[in-house]
Amino acid sequence: MTSRDQIIKLLRSQPVGYVSGQEISRRLNISRTAVWKQIQVLRDQGFEFAVKHAAGYRLLASPDLLLAADIENGLNSRLIGRKVVALRETASTNSLIRTLADQGASEGTLVVADRQSAGRARLGRHWTSPAGVNLYCSLLLKPDIPVQLAPQMTFLSAVSVAETLQQVCRLPAVLKWPNDVLVNGAKIAGLLNEMNAETEQVHEVVLGIGINLNMTADQLPAQLNYPATSVLLESGRKVDRLLFLRALLENLDRTYTEFQEHGFAPIRRRWEGLSVLINRPVVVEQAGQTLQGTVVGLDSDGALRLQTADGKIERILAGDVKTSDF
Amino acid sequence: MTSRDQIIKLLRSQPVGYVSGQEISRRLNISRTAVWKQIQVLRDQGFEFAVKHAAGYRLLASPDLLLAADIENGLNSRLIGRKVVALRETASTNSLIRTLADQGASEGTLVVADRQSAGRARLGRHWTSPAGVNLYCSLLLKPDIPVQLAPQMTFLSAVSVAETLQQVCRLPAVLKWPNDVLVNGAKIAGLLNEMNAETEQVHEVVLGIGINLNMTADQLPAQLNYPATSVLLESGRKVDRLLFLRALLENLDRTYTEFQEHGFAPIRRRWEGLSVLINRPVVVEQAGQTLQGTVVGLDSDGALRLQTADGKIERILAGDVKTSDF
Repeated sequence: MTSRDQIIKLLRSQPVGYVSGQEISRRLNISRTAVWKQIQVLRDQGFEFAVKHAAGYRLLASPDLLLAADIENGLNSRLIGRKVVALRETASTNSLIRTLADQGASEGTLVVADRQSAGRARLGRHWTSPAGVNLYCSLLLKPDIPVQLAPQMTFLSAVSVAETLQQVCRLPAVLKWPNDVLVNGAKIAGLLNEMNAETEQVHEVVLGIGINLNMTADQLPAQLNYPATSVLLESGRKVDRLLFLRALLENLDRTYTEFQEHGFAPIRRRWEGLSVLINRPVVVEQAGQTLQGTVVGLDSDGALRLQTADGKIERILAGDVKTSDF
Repeated sequence: MTSRDQIIKLLRSQPVGYVSGQEISRRLNISRTAVWKQIQVLRDQGFEFAVKHAAGYRLLASPDLLLAADIENGLNSRLIGRKVVALRETASTNSLIRTLADQGASEGTLVVADRQSAGRARLGRHWTSPAGVNLYCSLLLKPDIPVQLAPQMTFLSAVSVAETLQQVCRLPAVLKWPNDVLVNGAKIAGLLNEMNAETEQVHEVVLGIGINLNMTADQLPAQLNYPATSVLLESGRKVDRLLFLRALLENLDRTYTEFQEHGFAPIRRRWEGLSVLINRPVVVEQAGQTLQGTVVGLDSDGALRLQTADGKIERILAGDVKTSDF
């Protein structure tokens, strides 16, 4: 927690009373001048304070910022989000958390930013990341699994995001293999997972999660090769970003704990239940080949199981899956 | 190629005659003083020169150093080792090539060092890397494969190393799953492969290869949990490191080209032919479980196929495989 986060936490603990500069200085073990400087920075960030001679500071209003203290405080989580780095802006939360991982960041560390200046999506694409309206975060995991099973983490992330959209926003979120989260046929979230591995063992996995929460129609990027949407556009209501993030972290924590205790099978069942492709006829383009068949499930390594007309099961590891309506 | 590499290349092109300082200065487009300084550095590295007034320099003797120019010159390779970084010493060739990859190094780039000050083996272990006697190198590949198939690169590397030991050193090199290269039951090479991947697609793979070539018995590390050996100890003869490296790079290049054109099947067949486990009864320790069976082959994702007593095929993704003699 930064000094600024600590000041906000302290003032929030006194919603009606004042806290003196001397008290803040003593609690944070910083000088009175440093307190005053931090208050100025907070004002620049959109916080509003009442200042009373001989009484001190009182917090009047907070901007819609995600603060580490608010995210961590009372979070019902064993591992995920126990350590939070919350920033107004970073180039890419995935890039930052990989740097933190190189410096020894612990499993479960979360990086969240109000804005990404160079948000990344799959295959080097750009992820539109305007300030304040959406969620851009990255989570560091260190699962003890062989390389071949690393894609399991993608499904863990997808399931948690879709379920949180259902529970918090009451939206009919579904999943499309391998990692799309859709509402009414339009993409509402993007997952960019990156990993480091050594020979047969996964070192670390970064789950990058971008969710369009309060983006308006004119904020959606132009020229997409898929329809996109947001919670606001689908439900007509703004969602509280902090409340959504905390629910997501608690879901991810429960799901990861279940994974560590019982393996991938429960996640696979949840994914199959949320999948828009299951029991549907699809066409798959894979390495220049076209395959037709019916989706019958997910394999433990994340391959999509496709039953062709002759009854054979084909395993799809990568490729573009299309139904009649996508 | 560094200026020093260029000077050596130029002098080697005139094995009996002299090359004047002026000529070297003109060819390399550096000052006469710079030529003289580089010659001093080369002398410090163990090169010996004859210097004749008004005639110039002649190369008399070279130390046993791996030079980029010697490795690249006339190498029969399409991709592997077309760009070489050869150093007297680095902490770890894998670490260095990962840095070069971040800076945009091209596929096929090779880093080789005469000595590693912090050579790494699997699972964070140390790899003993004394100067001048062995081979320590790392290769950058960017294969277009899904994450689940990344272990294929480990088998590509193992097959190339074992075959080169057979062809160049006439040693009965065999392979043990997943990535051990053995001669007469002792480990002669270590492979440390690392990768970066994004959701379903491999970004880059680093093949780290350490081979004990001319290590003597007293240079072998003490306290190993497996027996170790070297080409010198097994064959009684020193092997020319440059010749061995060039043969290895040409084998890796042919194997990688075959992989790009025909996929993993030919490598799998070569691996099965070199495997010391095939058709042998083994015991596997895997996540607290013990499995007994006969090894019947390798799967396309690198899993070891084990037939148990009831005829069932088990897929081993990770674990410790033991036979009666290992």
